[in-house]
This record gives sequence, C-alpha cells and structure tokens, in this order.
Amino acid sequence: MQTRAAIAWAAGQPLSVETITIGGPRAGEVLVEIMATGICHTDQYTLSGKDPEGLFPAILGHEGAGIVREVGAGVASLKPGDHVIPLYTPECRQCKTCLSQRSNLCTAIRATQGKGVMPDGSSRFSRDQGTVFHYMGCSTFANFTVLPEIALAKVRQDAPFEKICYIGCGVTTGIGAVINTAKVWPGANVAVFGLGGIGLNVLQAARMVGADKIIGIDLNPARESMARKFGMTDFINPNEIGTDKVIQAITDLTGGGADFSFECIGNVHVMRQALECTHRGWGTSIIVGVAAAGQEIATRPFQLVTGRNWRGTAFGGARGRTDVPKIVDWYMEGKIEIDSLITHTMPLDDINRGFELMEKGESIRSVVIY
Amino acid sequence: MQTRAAIAWAAGQPLSVETITIGGPRAGEVLVEIMATGICHTDQYTLSGKDPEGLFPAILGHEGAGIVREVGAGVASLKPGDHVIPLYTPECRQCKTCLSQRSNLCTAIRATQGKGVMPDGSSRFSRDQGTVFHYMGCSTFANFTVLPEIALAKVRQDAPFEKICYIGCGVTTGIGAVINTAKVWPGANVAVFGLGGIGLNVLQAARMVGADKIIGIDLNPARESMARKFGMTDFINPNEIGTDKVIQAITDLTGGGADFSFECIGNVHVMRQALECTHRGWGTSIIVGVAAAGQEIATRPFQLVTGRNWRGTAFGGARGRTDVPKIVDWYMEGKIEIDSLITHTMPLDDINRGFELMEKGESIRSVVIY
Repeated sequence: MQTRAAIAWAAGQPLSVETITIGGPRAGEVLVEIMATGICHTDQYTLSGKDPEGLFPAILGHEGAGIVREVGAGVASLKPGDHVIPLYTPECRQCKTCLSQRSNLCTAIRATQGKGVMPDGSSRFSRDQGTVFHYMGCSTFANFTVLPEIALAKVRQDAPFEKICYIGCGVTTGIGAVINTAKVWPGANVAVFGLGGIGLNVLQAARMVGADKIIGIDLNPARESMARKFGMTDFINPNEIGTDKVIQAITDLTGGGADFSFECIGNVHVMRQALECTHRGWGTSIIVGVAAAGQEIATRPFQLVTGRNWRGTAFGGARGRTDVPKIVDWYMEGKIEIDSLITHTMPLDDINRGFELMEKGESIRSVVIY
Repeated sequence: MQTRAAIAWAAGQPLSVETITIGGPRAGEVLVEIMATGICHTDQYTLSGKDPEGLFPAILGHEGAGIVREVGAGVASLKPGDHVIPLYTPECRQCKTCLSQRSNLCTAIRATQGKGVMPDGSSRFSRDQGTVFHYMGCSTFANFTVLPEIALAKVRQDAPFEKICYIGCGVTTGIGAVINTAKVWPGANVAVFGLGGIGLNVLQAARMVGADKIIGIDLNPARESMARKFGMTDFINPNEIGTDKVIQAITDLTGGGADFSFECIGNVHVMRQALECTHRGWGTSIIVGVAAAGQEIATRPFQLVTGRNWRGTAFGGARGRTDVPKIVDWYMEGKIEIDSLITHTMPLDDINRGFELMEKGESIRSVVIY
C-alpha cells in the first residue's frame, strides 16, 4: 500500500512530503494510521546531521498517536481499531532489563532499531525500489507506519490524538523523570534548569507530587509566566544575577540546596550546576537533556563523596506499555495539562514550518495533524 | 593533666612524640584514654602537606579505640569505664541531616571540627602555652584525647582495642559503602577497584550480603591471594590485559556490566572506569577513594542517561553511634574479619615507622598500641 510521508533525504535539507510504498505488517508487527505527531528536538538534531547515528533517507518522527489498522501474525495484545501511542522505548516484558524491574531501557529490538530497520532486519518503507529507513522505531512523520507490537501503548479511545501524541515523548520524559527516576517526595525542594517543553512538564509533575519549592532557571524572561502556571514557585534568570551566582541563589532559597534538580537543556555546563546546587548528603540531580555527541560532564568527586547523586533518565524511566496509558488517563482527568503546551498545529504539507518555529524558539510544541 | 602524643609540627616532617598538656572535658565533652589507633592514608595525606585544609601543629589520628575516663557536664550517654570508638563523623541525632534520615553527614560540629578546635572554639591541647590543633575531631595519636559526646560510639567491653580501632575508619568505610550506600543485593555482581585495606573490606561486605561475582581490579598481583580470602571471585590486573580492556573484561564476566562498582583508590581516571563498567539501566558506582584536591571526574552524560548512577560515600554512610557498635558485634561474632588486615603493630614511639610502611605499600594497616 501507499502512504503520505515526510522524507528526510539528507542531513540539513528540508523534509520532502511525498507518497511512498509501505509494506504490510509481518509477524509480531502492527500497521498504524498516525493521526497526529509532535515535532521534537531529537528529530531536529538528527535532521541537522549532528547525530552521528543518523541514517538517510529516513522517515523521522517519534511522538505520535494513531489507530491500529492491521496486525501481523501472532499479535495478541492489539486489534484493528485500537488507539495507540508508538514507543521509541519498547517494553517487551521478557528481556533481562524488563525482567530486572530496575530500568525501562528494554533491549529486545535495540540493535535493529538503531540501524533503522524492523526486528527482522528489513524496512517497510521504500520509494522507487530504494529503501527508506525507519527512525527510532517509530517514523511518525508518515500517515501510515509499521511498528512491533511491543512498541505500542494501547490507550483509551476518547483521548484526542492531537494532544496525547505529545505523551509519546516530551510529556512522559518530563513527568517520568520526576515520578519514576527521581521519585520526588512530597515537600521536596526542586530546581528545574531550562523551561522549554520538557522543563514545563517537570514543573507540573513536581507540583502534582506535592513538591514545596519548585525553582525554575532560564535565560529567557518570557518563559516565567508560563512556568508559573505549570507550578514554578521561584524564578532565577542567570543573566540577571550572574551565572556564577545561581548555585548560591538556589542554596539560599532552599535552606541548603535542592533535594532534586533536573537539567532539561542538554548543556554540559548546566549539568554541573544542576548537580552542585543540590543538597549535601542526599541531593539527586537528573540529566534529562541530551548533550551533543562527544561532550562530557565533569565535577569534583567531593560533590559525590559528600552525598550527591548524579543520574540520568531516558523516556522518563517510563515503561511504555504500562505507564503511557496512565499518563493519558491523568491528562483526561485533568491532573496534568497539555493543551497550552501545543502552541502550533499544521497539516503534514507544512511540517517544515514546525521545524522553523522550533529553531526560532517560537513554539513549545508544534503538532502535525493528518 | 598531661598526655603523651605524636605531634605534627609542620607538613612533611616526621611526627614528634612528646608530653603535652591536655585540658579536662568541658560541658558535653568526654576525656578518653586511647588504647590503640590505626594509621590511615588520610593522616598521611594531611601530614604530607597536600591537604589544603591541614592545620599545624596538630595531633593527627582518627582511627582509635579507648576507654572513657571523665565526662563533662551534661554528658548522659557515657560514663567512666565505657569502651568507645571516636567518630570523625559524629551523630548528633538532632541536626537537619541527622533528622532527614537520608545521610550520615551530621553537621552539628562541622564548622569547628574543620578549624581544628572543639565545638566551643578552643583546643584542649597545648604545649609551652602554644595551641596544638585537634584533627578530624579525634586526635587519636595521643594517649588521652577529648571529644564531644556525640562523636563517640559506645561499644562492647570484650572487644580488643587493637583490632576494633580499625572500625573507626577503614572497616566501616568499606563495609558501609556496600551495605549503607550501595545497598548491594544478594546475587548482585560487584567490581572493586583497588585492593588495599578499604577494597578488602568492600570485598568481605559484598560476600557477607550474598553478592554473586565479586571482581577485584588491582595493578599489584601480590594482592590477589589476600583478596580471594576476603571474597574476591575473579581478579583483573590491568597491567596484564591492558587498561583499556578492563571495562570489556568486567562486562564479559558479568554478562553486561557490574550491578555495583566501588572505587577504593582515589584516582579520578579509575573513577570513570568504575562508572562505565556498570550495567546499563541500573548500574551504580560508588566513589570511596579520596582524590587529590582540585582533581575532577568526567564522563559522557550518555552514561547516566542510559541508567547508570554515580554516587559517593563518606565513612561508609554509617551513622557512627548507631552502626559502629553493630560492626564491632559482627567482628566479635566472626561475620567479618579484621585480624589479618592488621599487619603491623608498634608502640607510639615508633609511629613514624607505621607511616613508612604505608608509604612503601608494605602494610595493610599498622596499629599503634599504647
């Protein structure tokens, strides 16, 4: 069959919306009609050519929501008509990592996913007989895509696709960092570095779990008012007080340091600040942002020896099939906010405008509605 | 009154054993007759002059055991005749950190301890009217010393001073790193970098809690046999396989990486290896060794984002008054081994020989018996 898709032919070039061929689902696979997809910084990073693992041509996109249209042999947990969110971090429930119950980083299909193909080693996408690669196991910049059964979270049918697609990456990453990875406790003091989409989701999760002080740090004063709506209690602009005063300001506000901090930018220097602003004895700093390839973090070991804890999170530590449906429920119940974070919507033909808005910092999240 | 003591008059000079004046215990203080004391690398570090916070003249030593001889006003938990181990990390049970129940790094007397004086701001030691500083709040290189009540662990009376003094630092640091900080679980795979006294105690604690593979890494092949007696199941000598092959060797032995690793050297490059040899998803690396002032650790943030956890420990995360008596019990019950770690004993007059043995790597632990 055929599908409309935005193809990344090469690094640094705009996406090209075309009609391509898509093969049907093989054993263990599912054909999904994507109804909406967010445009994330990771798509931009790969498209820019800076991602050393980026493959071209590919169909990017990893933050979608859609409807199951066909299932391959042996698929038992999904049927046509089910509403689903694709998972770039699958949940097989059978690999060493899933069974460990200590991590969400399922390894069942890691090797082939990294090579831009399905678990059987082949791509379902082609154009003019040439292979087009899958991306992050999702490829949501196509109206139809194929995923392994273990890479789909089944969600309730009354949730709007054009909102819950954001749960496929940004929302879950921010909220999960707070509740799964950090396990922020009620009354904790929290510092959030970077108040973009991920940072705002960290803020609202910190509020949801009953954090006390929720301090936001950002160079852009325009982000303060939105952040306050998402739970921020105190705002620090390093440009105003001096970058070298940020740690002291957080220490003063919290009476000794943040219990938890979250780096939501991908800047290795900020990652160090985020660690060092936490409380002696037990402060935990979580790296959420993705640094450019090859960059390194550093600190004095004394920071760790005196009780600080340096950690990171991927997909918010969420087990996709288990936790994503819960977050959809929380959105539908009004426990978390998504609508105001989706600042722009557009049809697939205008997808490059979404990338431009992101690069200019004019959007929080742009969503393509098919 | 007077006491014999080994005075560090200046950095880089041998200790001088002299008779000096010691003031009696003031309110909240306790006069202790030290019966035995270990000589630790931290004493050597400060004596060398490399410790930027080192003060002279001082009475070094922080790994002792002795008998309470007199208590000051208000001391309720100790009486003359009690056997005690001095605590360089006190446990007041009332400060923010103690009450948090999340850290052992009691702050009650931190400021004055760092200045070489008692909590009231004065020193109890003097010679020819000149002040001699306390060290780490302990000063166990004196036959009599004065400590705050909150810096003394009361222990059973049948335990031999010349063995349990080692619990005042090295034993508790190694064992506590495993049971308090890492919380190693039964069946875990453990990697221990550096098989000196601390490393050997980490090994025996890992064995005690039921770890599976216990891998030791050391450049010195002579340490292998002793380490095997303390629970090591596999030995890696980086000089034999190549330093750059150590991580792969640990990954191969453990089927993916160590669940826990411990750096017991104080080398920032080894600290990085120790982190990166742990298992993706949940591996935890604990920094136990103390790096030289100003040195930094580094890694790619990807290591943390993919689930590794970088932490440190001081005094093994042990709450001194609560946990040290338990470790003394474990020694007396035969659950842990100490005797064979104490390779040399000597009278106070020979204390400089203990430092020489340590510098030459000829001792595991030298103990001064008064």
